[in-house]
Amino acid sequence: MTANSIKIERTTAPKQKPDENQLGFGKYFTDHMFIMDYEEGKGWINPRIIPYQPIMMDPAAKVFHYGQTVFEGLKAYRAADGRILLFRPEQNFLRLNRSNSRLSIPDVDGELALEALKQLILVDQDWVPSQEGNSLYIRPFVIATQATLGVAPSHNYHFMIIMSPVGAYYAEGIHPVKIYVESEYVRAVRGGTGNAKTAGNYAGGLKAQEEATSKGYSQVLWLDGVHQKYIEEVGSMNVFFKIGGTVYTPELNGSILDGITRNSMIQLLKHWNVPVVERQISIDEIYEAYTNGTLEEAFGTGTAAVISPIGDLYWNGHQMLINGGHTGELSQKLYDTLTSIQQGAQEDPFSWMVEVQQKAILS
Amino acid sequence: MTANSIKIERTTAPKQKPDENQLGFGKYFTDHMFIMDYEEGKGWINPRIIPYQPIMMDPAAKVFHYGQTVFEGLKAYRAADGRILLFRPEQNFLRLNRSNSRLSIPDVDGELALEALKQLILVDQDWVPSQEGNSLYIRPFVIATQATLGVAPSHNYHFMIIMSPVGAYYAEGIHPVKIYVESEYVRAVRGGTGNAKTAGNYAGGLKAQEEATSKGYSQVLWLDGVHQKYIEEVGSMNVFFKIGGTVYTPELNGSILDGITRNSMIQLLKHWNVPVVERQISIDEIYEAYTNGTLEEAFGTGTAAVISPIGDLYWNGHQMLINGGHTGELSQKLYDTLTSIQQGAQEDPFSWMVEVQQKAILS
Repeated sequence: MTANSIKIERTTAPKQKPDENQLGFGKYFTDHMFIMDYEEGKGWINPRIIPYQPIMMDPAAKVFHYGQTVFEGLKAYRAADGRILLFRPEQNFLRLNRSNSRLSIPDVDGELALEALKQLILVDQDWVPSQEGNSLYIRPFVIATQATLGVAPSHNYHFMIIMSPVGAYYAEGIHPVKIYVESEYVRAVRGGTGNAKTAGNYAGGLKAQEEATSKGYSQVLWLDGVHQKYIEEVGSMNVFFKIGGTVYTPELNGSILDGITRNSMIQLLKHWNVPVVERQISIDEIYEAYTNGTLEEAFGTGTAAVISPIGDLYWNGHQMLINGGHTGELSQKLYDTLTSIQQGAQEDPFSWMVEVQQKAILS
Repeated sequence: MTANSIKIERTTAPKQKPDENQLGFGKYFTDHMFIMDYEEGKGWINPRIIPYQPIMMDPAAKVFHYGQTVFEGLKAYRAADGRILLFRPEQNFLRLNRSNSRLSIPDVDGELALEALKQLILVDQDWVPSQEGNSLYIRPFVIATQATLGVAPSHNYHFMIIMSPVGAYYAEGIHPVKIYVESEYVRAVRGGTGNAKTAGNYAGGLKAQEEATSKGYSQVLWLDGVHQKYIEEVGSMNVFFKIGGTVYTPELNGSILDGITRNSMIQLLKHWNVPVVERQISIDEIYEAYTNGTLEEAFGTGTAAVISPIGDLYWNGHQMLINGGHTGELSQKLYDTLTSIQQGAQEDPFSWMVEVQQKAILS
């Protein structure tokens, strides 16, 4: 299958674009979407860009009952000179296939997927926001569509890409959030699906998130499923702590997500010669660093927020105010640097950015 | 909302019914389905029975991305005298709401749901198989339909019931299966969603099931997520062991399903004065009972198979042949008794069965 075989059907009724000051996250969708189908014995077939529209699903489709689905999340940015840039998109399709493997879903051709994404962006290029901080959020995903109730991998799937113009995560610049260390609910455990980007990991977290919100916290910090002691993730972000000049982040242990922003932060820190250590970190250790005054900064990392500083951490009766509740110097520098690279405003020493270039599209 | 408000739209194109000898499981669906919608602020609205048909789903619907969904499974049986019987259906709707609570989904009115199910069965009563061992499998489920990508509980849902005529699980009577004790993958952990009937629990198990099948086993036996030592479930069934005359089954610890067949088996055993104990059981203990000759029987319990005897258990290099690989006496008696009650062929001392009776249906 070649990229040229992607058929394009353009909408005849383009939507009105939303106010760039009121975008929020994942509320509005562009005029088109990409979809291709999988049939057992035929593989992935019929790649096409079509008007954004509802899909017809049999009520017995396996995704509804057995959650056989994976997804990705990445962004396209509009540079000041008008270019459209993607941040390490090939990494997302590599991870998609790692998730696919865990969920017994057939591999998607990463090159085809990236080419489809580029073509989709070009078709909807007027949807890439230009206001600083805004971007086009991209959601590739696979769903199992076979309409049988046996608990077994599906014989049929859709792979789709939908896109949503989104606002800056922090409308007035980054600011620290209050985080609740979750001691009851567990997100994932080794041997489970924690390192796959799959629906069930998020479903299980909704309840904890609701309860934390009702207590006045914006996210939960997840502890490991075995000991309920070691730090895993914060909300749906990876997490970092700066203690006595060194930056620590939980090692990839099979139950946390291998975040692309996480990986990029580690690369940036190493580039700056800031000591960075990936290892198992207990919540007791963080509390000890807090009490002896060496806990300097804490932050989450992810595609949506890039950096989300933690100003306040509640654990088991202890309230930890981090860096006086202010954004730390290193957190700010990481945020400024990465967002500046992503928006094409600063040199890209790692060749992370991929430009989406206009070319002849067969339609 | 009253049951009378359920609107009924009958199909004008009834399907041809499948051969009762070739039903399999969950492959064919009846002519109609039940559906009602939830809208934030309005609650559950518009309950209706309509022809079985695909549903239109926005590609951004939360169920696809964050797995916010729960389901149930139960059966309707055709008695020899033609009556249609349901097995403890009120228990399924109670459990549905326990699952809903864990997944931050609004409660469904259990009485309305049961009435909807009865009316749906009456509309499709010709689909209830009459051949011995066959039954009508019923799948109530809830899916989150709001089309936004924020990780938060949905504001919109569908509650649906679909039905499928299914064959006897064991075409030639029950026979023992080979089970692989899973030491790598984990199904669930305390604090997770293991005791909710939700898609993510099944998604995570597909890979282990595939690998066990490739090794010649029909199901996996899951160990607990914390110690990978204590027995949880077998495939998607609860599990029982008869050791030295006493029946043991894992206690409800939050990570295993509170099975209705499990509960019924315990009631039957107590009724017969067979000692039955619910407690934590380690796999070492089972192996020890095997080596000292006191492991008499083992079986799984669930709606689909009722009883699934375990003839062969593989754990960590040890092959345990249970009861010479034959169905145990107690397993057989439990199977015969429960299936006989379910088919209305024998006295129902616990008032488990609920007859679906013809009455005026407003349409």
